[in-house]
Amino acid sequence: MREFETEIRSIDQIAALLNSQQSSCPGIVDSAPLPSVNSVISIIHDLRHLLFPGIHMAEGARQLVSTSNIRLQLLPIHTRLKREIARALEHSRQARLRIHRSGTDDVTATLNAAASATSITDSFLSRLPALQTILASDVAAAFNGDPAAKTQEEIVLCYPGIEAITVYRIAHELLILGVPYLPRIMTEWAHRETGIDIHPGATIGEAFFIDHGTGVVIGETCHIGSQVTLYQGVTLGAWSFPRDEDGNLIRGTKRHPTLEDRVAVYSNATILGGTTVVGAGSLIGSSVTLNRSVPPNTIVTIEKPSLKFREAA
Amino acid sequence: MREFETEIRSIDQIAALLNSQQSSCPGIVDSAPLPSVNSVISIIHDLRHLLFPGIHMAEGARQLVSTSNIRLQLLPIHTRLKREIARALEHSRQARLRIHRSGTDDVTATLNAAASATSITDSFLSRLPALQTILASDVAAAFNGDPAAKTQEEIVLCYPGIEAITVYRIAHELLILGVPYLPRIMTEWAHRETGIDIHPGATIGEAFFIDHGTGVVIGETCHIGSQVTLYQGVTLGAWSFPRDEDGNLIRGTKRHPTLEDRVAVYSNATILGGTTVVGAGSLIGSSVTLNRSVPPNTIVTIEKPSLKFREAA
Amino acid sequence: MREFETEIRSIDQIAALLNSQQSSCPGIVDSAPLPSVNSVISIIHDLRHLLFPGIHMAEGARQLVSTSNIRLQLLPIHTRLKREIARALEHSRQARLRIHRSGTDDVTATLNAAASATSITDSFLSRLPALQTILASDVAAAFNGDPAAKTQEEIVLCYPGIEAITVYRIAHELLILGVPYLPRIMTEWAHRETGIDIHPGATIGEAFFIDHGTGVVIGETCHIGSQVTLYQGVTLGAWSFPRDEDGNLIRGTKRHPTLEDRVAVYSNATILGGTTVVGAGSLIGSSVTLNRSVPPNTIVTIEKPSLKFREAA
Repeated sequence: MREFETEIRSIDQIAALLNSQQSSCPGIVDSAPLPSVNSVISIIHDLRHLLFPGIHMAEGARQLVSTSNIRLQLLPIHTRLKREIARALEHSRQARLRIHRSGTDDVTATLNAAASATSITDSFLSRLPALQTILASDVAAAFNGDPAAKTQEEIVLCYPGIEAITVYRIAHELLILGVPYLPRIMTEWAHRETGIDIHPGATIGEAFFIDHGTGVVIGETCHIGSQVTLYQGVTLGAWSFPRDEDGNLIRGTKRHPTLEDRVAVYSNATILGGTTVVGAGSLIGSSVTLNRSVPPNTIVTIEKPSLKFREAA
Repeated sequence: MREFETEIRSIDQIAALLNSQQSSCPGIVDSAPLPSVNSVISIIHDLRHLLFPGIHMAEGARQLVSTSNIRLQLLPIHTRLKREIARALEHSRQARLRIHRSGTDDVTATLNAAASATSITDSFLSRLPALQTILASDVAAAFNGDPAAKTQEEIVLCYPGIEAITVYRIAHELLILGVPYLPRIMTEWAHRETGIDIHPGATIGEAFFIDHGTGVVIGETCHIGSQVTLYQGVTLGAWSFPRDEDGNLIRGTKRHPTLEDRVAVYSNATILGGTTVVGAGSLIGSSVTLNRSVPPNTIVTIEKPSLKFREAA
Repeated sequence: MREFETEIRSIDQIAALLNSQQSSCPGIVDSAPLPSVNSVISIIHDLRHLLFPGIHMAEGARQLVSTSNIRLQLLPIHTRLKREIARALEHSRQARLRIHRSGTDDVTATLNAAASATSITDSFLSRLPALQTILASDVAAAFNGDPAAKTQEEIVLCYPGIEAITVYRIAHELLILGVPYLPRIMTEWAHRETGIDIHPGATIGEAFFIDHGTGVVIGETCHIGSQVTLYQGVTLGAWSFPRDEDGNLIRGTKRHPTLEDRVAVYSNATILGGTTVVGAGSLIGSSVTLNRSVPPNTIVTIEKPSLKFREAA
């Protein structure tokens, strides 16, 4: 009995303490919920199911692919995506209000957010056929680039690279349409699933192939051409971060490299810097660290790595 | 109301467009479902539960380990595994039909697929005792190789290396038995869980230890001896891909290295090439890139890395 | 019918074989269950929800943050955490008994385990306000260190680095309180989620930032100061493992490096050794391998990497 009292008392004290410091926590915008991560993930699953019919199905069931069937899949996606986009727009609007104290009529603004959510959702869904076409080029590139691939179905069914690229291409469309939060939630979910971290802001051409992929990082301002291949552990990163005179980071400048068409970057290579351009058809070898541009059709490898050989004791 | 109509109209158009290009998508074999990824994953969970009794149990419950109890666990595994193997065989048979247009009597062929599924499942289950024995050697190797390991139970309970190796050993048996799809589905699931990418085609001896493991890639045609240790970020990869005169990849040649017994490869080292053999007892240091053979008992490290030191501004 | 009999017979044989070798498996302590991994993970989710109110909520729902509300969240966490701690203490006590055969009165010992579980749980929960404060410093460090970060909420919502650090800080408190199994279960779960492997035994100061993070390994005996930043693929590891005269590993010596305040380590750098100290304010460049100490304010980079350039065939 005594012990029980002690527990409760300590819990009351802890609760009071935690409450007293909540104001200093991020994420407290009392009236506007953030998007639901679980709901966003389920939308991704339904979109993949739609974009790769017959592959991502629970229990191996089959469906007849038909216009009416696809329409039945699109309607719930439309409803849920619109809701999450509206949440994201409204939450970030209120966050801006909180920071800039720039008062506007909330009712009107909320209605506007709802209206934009609808038109953004329509615009996004109308991009799905184009997304399906470019994703087919990515799957074909994986099949043509990996001797271990047995069929294109196997690639869609279980290759992490195609999963990460699919989620990136979906997230990139939403980012272009001005949706906050959702794109990064999507790509960071794919990052967890695959170990491949593609920022939704990156620009990536068709027939993109990432093999194995664990540890790949593609920065926000990368420009990647078509028919580019990356292997595991490749970093396309920033060299240094410009700051303003107050020492605050300057956000949104081009900090990450450009890879032209038909470039291949092998495992654990690192390419850094916003002005670095890897010319078309070039090949960057394993574990190379590159922070300057190279002309087209250049092969860059580590000078015969200086290794030390000795007998084990 | 108007808005609602607009939505629906656009959705109809999108559905029609998506339907019009489905034929070009991989995975459309209308009559034969693919294996169910969820079902395959649940089979893996049940097999791990069986191979490491008392460790992988929901809610920390305990069971009395007895022949009858184990039999009760085996029966549902047998049923579900047989179903997924049959799906995999039938789907790949129809995919071959579709590609090669080589007509055979479907009914007979389907019955054959079912029969092979049964005998393959029996053969696989009969390998479980041997699998349990070799996995015990892997757990012991982890305990002997990692000063941070407190008990062998802790290793089975939460080390990603042992999880990846367990799934690999299960998948490898199925691959040897000629099962399509399932082995790669299994190892890519483990890849997602652990960041360790072991192709089910690789050959790996007893007492294998992978520490930390994120970023490890072990290629399809690797040969790895017994008592080998790998650390995080190690790539056992291909040097270049031979193509036939039409420029198509030649699949199934030995493209990945051989590691003899008692080799240790430290973090982020890269070993490439199908003719590369690392001799027994050799040690390959962190971040080494190696694409030629080394004799037994060789220690390979980076020549005192040429580093540039300067004072921070 | 015949086939069915065959199946069953083979299954009986397999079951008998598996049963005959169970005694050699780890994890068989018949009377004491291990902690439940699923239950431990759900406790982590509830703790994150409590430490970052309004961010980690299913379906984007909102809550009024109040003392009574927080108290309602704390009570079930207290109950479940106490149960898992008691399981961990009792299981490891019986494992010790089994190994050392040192008999003690089980009833008394079990009661003691339950009592310690209660006091440990109380002590842990009383640390939550301090945990929330230091985690706020980690979130702020991420925002100040990443030009791609749009808001602090985005960081808590989806940055893997903050997830791994949150789980590490929770696990580290439990480790300090002498709880077996749970700390490592927690950090290995985070490792699976994020690709970031932080041993719960490591000591890490405030305002710690890990960007991207896949492949990061932080060893058990690392000492890391405040305002330190790590990028993906960084290893803070052991150089070699001392063994006693019987060749057994000596566990618990300092094997991993020390990083002083304001150190930054860029992608895929490797720092090894228990006596290696990186001085305050130093910067270790991408892909550097370092196994000796450097003074404060030193910049270490790879000597202009010797690259070989040639034209592609």
